[in-house]
Amino acid sequence: MNRTRYQRHSGKSGQAPGTLIHVGRKRTEKTRIVAIDFDALRIQESITPTLSELSNFKSGSANVWVSIEGLHEIELINSIGDCFQIHSLVKEDILNTTQRPKIENFDDYLFIVMKMLDYDDKAEAINSQQISLVVGANFLLSFQEGVDDPFDPLRQRIRAESSRLRMSGTDYLAYCMVDIIVDNYFVVLDKLAERIELVEEELVRNPKPDILRVIHKLKTDLIFLRRSVWPLREIINRLINEDSSLFKDSTRPYLRDVFDHTIHAVDTIETFRDIVSGMLDIYLSSVSYKLNEIMKVLTIIATIFIPLTFLAGWYGMNFKNMPEIDSPWGYPLVIVAAIIITFSMLIFFRRKKWI
Amino acid sequence: MNRTRYQRHSGKSGQAPGTLIHVGRKRTEKTRIVAIDFDALRIQESITPTLSELSNFKSGSANVWVSIEGLHEIELINSIGDCFQIHSLVKEDILNTTQRPKIENFDDYLFIVMKMLDYDDKAEAINSQQISLVVGANFLLSFQEGVDDPFDPLRQRIRAESSRLRMSGTDYLAYCMVDIIVDNYFVVLDKLAERIELVEEELVRNPKPDILRVIHKLKTDLIFLRRSVWPLREIINRLINEDSSLFKDSTRPYLRDVFDHTIHAVDTIETFRDIVSGMLDIYLSSVSYKLNEIMKVLTIIATIFIPLTFLAGWYGMNFKNMPEIDSPWGYPLVIVAAIIITFSMLIFFRRKKWI
Amino acid sequence: MNRTRYQRHSGKSGQAPGTLIHVGRKRTEKTRIVAIDFDALRIQESITPTLSELSNFKSGSANVWVSIEGLHEIELINSIGDCFQIHSLVKEDILNTTQRPKIENFDDYLFIVMKMLDYDDKAEAINSQQISLVVGANFLLSFQEGVDDPFDPLRQRIRAESSRLRMSGTDYLAYCMVDIIVDNYFVVLDKLAERIELVEEELVRNPKPDILRVIHKLKTDLIFLRRSVWPLREIINRLINEDSSLFKDSTRPYLRDVFDHTIHAVDTIETFRDIVSGMLDIYLSSVSYKLNEIMKVLTIIATIFIPLTFLAGWYGMNFKNMPEIDSPWGYPLVIVAAIIITFSMLIFFRRKKWI
Amino acid sequence: MNRTRYQRHSGKSGQAPGTLIHVGRKRTEKTRIVAIDFDALRIQESITPTLSELSNFKSGSANVWVSIEGLHEIELINSIGDCFQIHSLVKEDILNTTQRPKIENFDDYLFIVMKMLDYDDKAEAINSQQISLVVGANFLLSFQEGVDDPFDPLRQRIRAESSRLRMSGTDYLAYCMVDIIVDNYFVVLDKLAERIELVEEELVRNPKPDILRVIHKLKTDLIFLRRSVWPLREIINRLINEDSSLFKDSTRPYLRDVFDHTIHAVDTIETFRDIVSGMLDIYLSSVSYKLNEIMKVLTIIATIFIPLTFLAGWYGMNFKNMPEIDSPWGYPLVIVAAIIITFSMLIFFRRKKWI
Amino acid sequence: MNRTRYQRHSGKSGQAPGTLIHVGRKRTEKTRIVAIDFDALRIQESITPTLSELSNFKSGSANVWVSIEGLHEIELINSIGDCFQIHSLVKEDILNTTQRPKIENFDDYLFIVMKMLDYDDKAEAINSQQISLVVGANFLLSFQEGVDDPFDPLRQRIRAESSRLRMSGTDYLAYCMVDIIVDNYFVVLDKLAERIELVEEELVRNPKPDILRVIHKLKTDLIFLRRSVWPLREIINRLINEDSSLFKDSTRPYLRDVFDHTIHAVDTIETFRDIVSGMLDIYLSSVSYKLNEIMKVLTIIATIFIPLTFLAGWYGMNFKNMPEIDSPWGYPLVIVAAIIITFSMLIFFRRKKWI
Repeated sequence: MNRTRYQRHSGKSGQAPGTLIHVGRKRTEKTRIVAIDFDALRIQESITPTLSELSNFKSGSANVWVSIEGLHEIELINSIGDCFQIHSLVKEDILNTTQRPKIENFDDYLFIVMKMLDYDDKAEAINSQQISLVVGANFLLSFQEGVDDPFDPLRQRIRAESSRLRMSGTDYLAYCMVDIIVDNYFVVLDKLAERIELVEEELVRNPKPDILRVIHKLKTDLIFLRRSVWPLREIINRLINEDSSLFKDSTRPYLRDVFDHTIHAVDTIETFRDIVSGMLDIYLSSVSYKLNEIMKVLTIIATIFIPLTFLAGWYGMNFKNMPEIDSPWGYPLVIVAAIIITFSMLIFFRRKKWI
Repeated sequence: MNRTRYQRHSGKSGQAPGTLIHVGRKRTEKTRIVAIDFDALRIQESITPTLSELSNFKSGSANVWVSIEGLHEIELINSIGDCFQIHSLVKEDILNTTQRPKIENFDDYLFIVMKMLDYDDKAEAINSQQISLVVGANFLLSFQEGVDDPFDPLRQRIRAESSRLRMSGTDYLAYCMVDIIVDNYFVVLDKLAERIELVEEELVRNPKPDILRVIHKLKTDLIFLRRSVWPLREIINRLINEDSSLFKDSTRPYLRDVFDHTIHAVDTIETFRDIVSGMLDIYLSSVSYKLNEIMKVLTIIATIFIPLTFLAGWYGMNFKNMPEIDSPWGYPLVIVAAIIITFSMLIFFRRKKWI
Repeated sequence: MNRTRYQRHSGKSGQAPGTLIHVGRKRTEKTRIVAIDFDALRIQESITPTLSELSNFKSGSANVWVSIEGLHEIELINSIGDCFQIHSLVKEDILNTTQRPKIENFDDYLFIVMKMLDYDDKAEAINSQQISLVVGANFLLSFQEGVDDPFDPLRQRIRAESSRLRMSGTDYLAYCMVDIIVDNYFVVLDKLAERIELVEEELVRNPKPDILRVIHKLKTDLIFLRRSVWPLREIINRLINEDSSLFKDSTRPYLRDVFDHTIHAVDTIETFRDIVSGMLDIYLSSVSYKLNEIMKVLTIIATIFIPLTFLAGWYGMNFKNMPEIDSPWGYPLVIVAAIIITFSMLIFFRRKKWI
Repeated sequence: MNRTRYQRHSGKSGQAPGTLIHVGRKRTEKTRIVAIDFDALRIQESITPTLSELSNFKSGSANVWVSIEGLHEIELINSIGDCFQIHSLVKEDILNTTQRPKIENFDDYLFIVMKMLDYDDKAEAINSQQISLVVGANFLLSFQEGVDDPFDPLRQRIRAESSRLRMSGTDYLAYCMVDIIVDNYFVVLDKLAERIELVEEELVRNPKPDILRVIHKLKTDLIFLRRSVWPLREIINRLINEDSSLFKDSTRPYLRDVFDHTIHAVDTIETFRDIVSGMLDIYLSSVSYKLNEIMKVLTIIATIFIPLTFLAGWYGMNFKNMPEIDSPWGYPLVIVAAIIITFSMLIFFRRKKWI
Repeated sequence: MNRTRYQRHSGKSGQAPGTLIHVGRKRTEKTRIVAIDFDALRIQESITPTLSELSNFKSGSANVWVSIEGLHEIELINSIGDCFQIHSLVKEDILNTTQRPKIENFDDYLFIVMKMLDYDDKAEAINSQQISLVVGANFLLSFQEGVDDPFDPLRQRIRAESSRLRMSGTDYLAYCMVDIIVDNYFVVLDKLAERIELVEEELVRNPKPDILRVIHKLKTDLIFLRRSVWPLREIINRLINEDSSLFKDSTRPYLRDVFDHTIHAVDTIETFRDIVSGMLDIYLSSVSYKLNEIMKVLTIIATIFIPLTFLAGWYGMNFKNMPEIDSPWGYPLVIVAAIIITFSMLIFFRRKKWI
C-alpha cells in the first residue's frame, strides 16, 4: 500500500506546540549545508559551515544565503534556527514536510513554505519536495528535503560578477527561487498535457477500462497539483501587497510577473480538470454505445432465427397424423414461409434503422 | 435505526430563550469537576470543588481552569454558570450538544463551541463530542460531554514548573485546547485516508456493490467532518483579528499556526471529497464495462449457435419429400455449411474487435 | 394537479404599485384580531378591537401587539395599516402571500416577511404560512394567513408578571417570534431526517423505482426549505448590524443566538441536500448492478445450453447416411461431448469470476 | 433552422464605434412615435410628432415621455437621439437588439437596456423584446422593437388627474416601466411552472423519450430567462444606490420593492433549474429500471425453457442405440425431470426476488 | 499528434528572468514593421523604419503607432523595446506567445496582452494569435505573431482627415484595437452557435457516437474561448478604473461600452456551456432509450417463440411410448396450445405497455 499517496500528519497530537519532530520521509543520508555570502564587490562560499561561521555571516553587512539540504537532523536545524533567531513554531513547520504552502510575517523575517514539484517519467508520478524559505533583511535560509539542488543555477548567477542577482539583496534572491518553483509547475503541466493527449487519442481509437484508471490518476494528479499551486497565488499576492520593508519596490514588477505565471498555472489546471472530466463522459457514452451495437447484432440474429427454428422444430414433431408432412407441397411451402419470415424481419430492421 | 446519525434538535420549540434543557445523549453517570488554580509560582488542584471554592478561585488573582465533564446535571451547570456570571443563553447553548461550532464575544468573556472528534476503529465511525469553552481574563471553563479527558496532557504540562503553559494565562491555555482538537482532526483524516486507499485497491481488484455502501459512508463522514471543521476556520480567524484584550499579542503567532492547520484540514477534506466522488464514477464505469463483457460472451455464443441450431432443426423435419435427406451429399454439405457459418461469424466478431 | 406546489404570482401585471390584492389561498372564514397592550405594570387584552381602540393603543405609552389572523378582508387590513401609518407598498406585500422573506427599514418601523413552516405528517408535506411583522417603537403588528396561532405561548409569557417579555419592548417580542419560527424549522428538519433515514434503509434492503419519487420529493422539499430559510440569515444579520434605534443593545445577544440557529439550519439543509443526491447515485448504481446480475444468470444458462441444444439438434437430423447414428459408439460419444462442453463452460465462468 | 434561437451579433466587426446599424428582426412596418407631455396641471399627447415639436417638449418645463416603437428607421432614431443630445454609443446600443441588459450613467441622463418577455402559448416559446430607456431630468425616451405596447396602461394612469404618476417625474415613470417588465417575468415563470408540473405528471405516468426534448427546452428556456433577469438585479441595485440626482428619495422605496421582486424572480428561476435537472435524473433512472424489468422477463422465460428445450432435443436424436428411448419409463422420467427443472428455476427466481 | 492543442510553456525553467526566448510557432518568414506617425494636422507612414527613425518618432510631439508583425527575430524586438525604454520582463512576455491575457501598469506605459481569435471554417477550429500592446503617452506598439493584419481598417480610419481616430491620442487607438478583438469574439461565437444548432438538429434526427466527439470538441473550444475572454473583463475594468493619466476621460464611455460587450461575450460562453452539457445528457438518454427499444423487440420475439419451440421439440422426441403422438387429437391439441401461448404472451406485453 502506497502510504505516501495521501499524506500522513498524525503522531503529533497532544504534543506541546513548538516540539520539534521530523514528519516525512528521510531523503538523504547526511544533511548538506551550503552558505554563500555576497555583495556587489565580493563573494564567499562555504560548505557545511560551523555555527559560529553562520553567526558571523548573519552579523556581517553583506547578504548571506544558507541552503540546508536534508531535514532529519533535528538538533542541527534547531541550532541554525536559534542562530538566526527563528520562532520555535517556524522550526516546527520546517521539519513537518506535510505543510500546506503558506506565508507568515514575523516582522524581522518572512517565512514561506512552498512545494517544488517534478515529474518522474518512469513512475508516471509527480514528486513533491517541501521548500521552506526564511527571508530576513540580509539573510535567506532555504530548507529542502533532498540533496538534488534545484537552486544551483542561482549560485552560478551569483558568482557571475555584476549579475542582477549579485547586485540585489535577499528579496530578489527569494523571488528567483519562487520563479524557479513556478517554472517547474509548467514543466509538470506539460507532461500532464502530453498524457491527456495520449488518453484522448486512445479514447478515440480503442476505449478500454484501463483508461479509467489512467483518467482517475490524471484527476488525482490534478487535484494534488492544484493543492500545491493554489495557495502560492495568495503567497505571492501578499508579497506584492504587504507593506513590508523586506521586499524592495524594484523587485515588485518581478513579483507581479511571477504572480501572473501562477494565475496562468492555476488557470491551466482548471482547464485540464474540465477536459479530464469531459473524457470520462465520453468513455461512458462510448461504452453505452458499444453495448447498443452488441445488443443490435444479438437481436437481429436471434429474431431472424428464433421463428425459423420454431418452424423447423414444428415439422420435426413425430405426430402420426400431420397432414402437411405427407403432402408433396409441405416442404416447398415451409421454404417459402422461411424466406418470407426472413425478409419481413430484414425490412423491419431497416425501418428501425438497425441495419 | 441509528437515531443519532442525523442530529435531533427539536423538543425546544415554544420555550422561552434561556430555558435550560439538556439536548443530547447522557455519556456519564456522575458529573466530574476538576479545578486547577495556577500562576507562575504556585499550583492548586481540586476535584469536584464546592461552589464557594469556585467563587474563591474566581476572585483570586491567579488563573483558574475548571473542567466540567458530563452535562446532564442541569442544576449544577446552572449554578457554576451563575458563579462565573455567564449569560443564560450561553448556559442554554452549553447544554444543547447539537450546536454548530461558533464563537461569541460577551465583552467579559469569550464563548467558544467546538467539536472534538475521534475515530472508533471497531464501529468504523467518527465519534463527536461537544466542547464548550468560556474564556475569561483569569478563568477558563471547559465543558465536555463524557469523562474520557482529551485535555489531560495539558494538566501534566501545567504541573511542570516553568512550562510555557504555567507562565501564560488562560488565553494560551485556550489555544492549547483548540490545538489539541485540530490535531485530532488530522488523526481522523488519516484514518479516512487509510479507508480511501483500501477502497481504491478494492475497486481495482474486485468491484462489488458493497463498495457503494462504503463510498456512501465515506461521503457522509466527509460531509460530517466538514461541518465540524469548516466553522472552526472562522472561529480562529475571529480570535486572531478581534480587538479583544483577552488574547495577548504573544499568543497570536500560535493562533495563526493553528489557523493554518485548520485551513490544511479543510483543504484535505475537500481533496478527499473530490477523490471519493471520482471513485463512484469509476465504480459505475467498471460495472458498465462488465455488463459489456457479459453481453459480448452471450452474443458470440448465441450468434454462432443459433443459425447452426436452425440448420440442424431444418433437417430434423419429417417431411416425406425432402430430396436433401435422401441424397448421399446431404449430410457432408450440411457439415460444410456449418463450418462456413461458424468461420464467417468468427471473422465478423474479429472485425468488430470483440474477440 | 397540485396548483399550490409552485407558487402563482401573476394576475398583478400592469396594476399600479400599491394596489391591494390578496394573492394566496383563503385559510379562514373570518379575520381574527387580537390586541394586547402591556408594560411592566399593567396588561390589557382585546379581541377584535375597533379601529379607534387601535388608535388609542398606538398613541398610548405602553407597548401594543396586534395580531391579525386571516388576510382576505382587504378593507380591514388597509384601515389597520392606515391607522398605524404603514406605507402602501407594505400593505400590498402583506396581502401577497407569495413574498420572499425580506426586511425593509422605513425609518419609523421595520417591515419583516417570514415563512412559518410546519410538517403535515399525513400528507408528508411541508405547509408554509407567511408571517409579516411591522415592528415600531411601541407597537408590533403581526399578520398571518390562518387562525392556528403559533405565537400563543408568547401571550402566556406576557401575561406572567415580571417575565422578561413583559419587561421588554416590542423588539424583544419580535425576536421571540423569529425564534419560534426558526425553532419550527428544526422540527421540520427532524421530520426530514427521519424520512431520509427511512429511505436509506430501504435503499439497502430493497431498492424500487418508487423510491425515486420519494427522493425527488425530498429534494424539492429541501429546495423549498432552503428558499424559506436562506433569506432569514440576511434578515437577522441586518437586524443585528443595522444602526436602528428600534432594536435595543440588550436584545442583540438574543439576535446573535437566533442568527447562529439560522446558520445551523442552513448548514443542515445543505448537508441533507448532499446526502440526498448521494442516495440517487446509490440507487442508480444498485440498479446497474442488478442488471448485471440478471444478465450473468441469463448468459450462464444460455451459453451452457445453446451448444448442447445444437449438438442434440444435429443428431436429430434425418439424413439417411449419417454414419454416427448407426454406430454403437455414437450415443456414448455425444454424452461425453456434452459433459466436456458443460465443464469447459463452467471453468470459463469461474475464471471470469461470474460463479 | 431556427436562426433566431441563439442570437447573432456579428456583421459589425471592424466598424468604427458609434456606427449606427440595426441588428435584429424588423417587427413593424412603420415606426410609431407617441409623445406625452405632462405635469401636475396639464397633459398634452401627440402621435408621431415632428422633430421641432420634440425639441419644444425637451426645452419645456414639464415632463415628456417619448415612446418610439420600431427600430429599423435608423435616420429617425439618429435625429431623435441628436434632439435629446444622446451619445452616439447609446444610439448604437439602442439599435442593436442583442444587447445584454445594462445601465449606464451619462451624468445628464441614465441609459437602461432591459428585456421584456412574454410567453407565446401557441409556439410554447418565450418571446423577447428589447426595451431601451433614456431617463433624463425632465424627459424619458423609451425604445421598443414592435408596436404592441406593454406600457399603454401607464398612459391611462398619466391621463388620470392627480394620479401618482401624473404628480411625479420621469424617475417614477421609469420605475413603473421596470415594474411592468418584472411583473411580466412572473407571468412567464407561471407558464413555465405549469409546464414543469405537466412534465412531472407525465414522468410519473408514462416516461417517453419525447419528454427529453421537453426537458431540454425547459432548461434552455430557464437559461435564457436567467440571462434576461439576472443583470436586472444589478441595474436596479445601481438605481437605488447610485448617487444620482435623477432618482428622487421618494422613489427609492418603490425601487427597493421592485428589487425584491427581481431577487424573487432570480430565486424562482434557480429553484426551477434545480427541479428540472432533478427530472432528468428521474427519467434516466426510470428508463434504467424499465430495462431491468424487460431483462428480467426475458431471463426468466429463457432460463426456464432453454434447459427444457435441450432435454427435448436430446431425446429427439436419432441414434439407434439409445436405451432410454425404448424403455417404457423413458417418457415418464423425462416429464418428471422437466417438472423438477421448472420448479427449481422458479424457486431460484423467488430467492433472487425476481418474481 | 496535435502538439499545439494544449500549449507548451516549458523549456524556460532555470533561465534568469528577462531572458529573451521566442516561445511559439513561427508564422511569418520576415518580420514586418509598419509605423504611422499622426496628429490632427499631418500623417506620415513608414514601412520597416530604421531604429533611428523610430527614436525620432518617439521624441516627436505627434502620436506614433508602430505595428510589429512576426516575433521570431529576437534581436529586432529587443532593440525596438530598448528604443522605447521597455522593461525587460515586458520584452520577455511579448516573445512568449503562451501568455495569459493580462494588463500591467509600468507608470510610463501600460502593457496589455490579448488573444485575437478567428474561426477556421475548413479545420472547424479556433485560431488564436497573441496581440501585445504597449501604450505610452504618445506612442503605441502593437506586436502580433503573423502578417495578416486585423488592424488594417484602423489605418484607413487614421488616414481619413478629421476622423475621430486622427483627432484622438494613443488611448483611443488602443481602445479601437480592443474593440476589434472583442468584435471578433462574437464572430467566433456565432460560428459556434451555428455548430451547436447543427448538433441539436442531428441529436433529434439520428444520434450517432460521432456526435460525442463533436460535443467534446465544442466543449474544449468553449473552455479555450473562456480562457481568452475571461481575463479581458478584468483588463478593461482596470483600464476604466485605474487612476492612470494615459487614458483620457473622453475615452472612458467607449471603454465602458467594450466592457459591456466583453461581459456579454462571457455570458454567451457560459450559456453555450450550459447548453452543450445539456446535449450530452440528451445523447446519453436517447442511447439508453434505444437500448430499451432493442431489448423490447428481442424479448417479445424470444418470449413468444421459446416456449413454442420447446413445445415442438417435446413432440419431436423419439420415445416409443408417447401416447400423444399416436392419438388423432395430439396434433390439433398442440396447435391449440401454441395459439393460446402466443395470445397470452401478447396480452402480457400489452399490459406491460411494450406493444
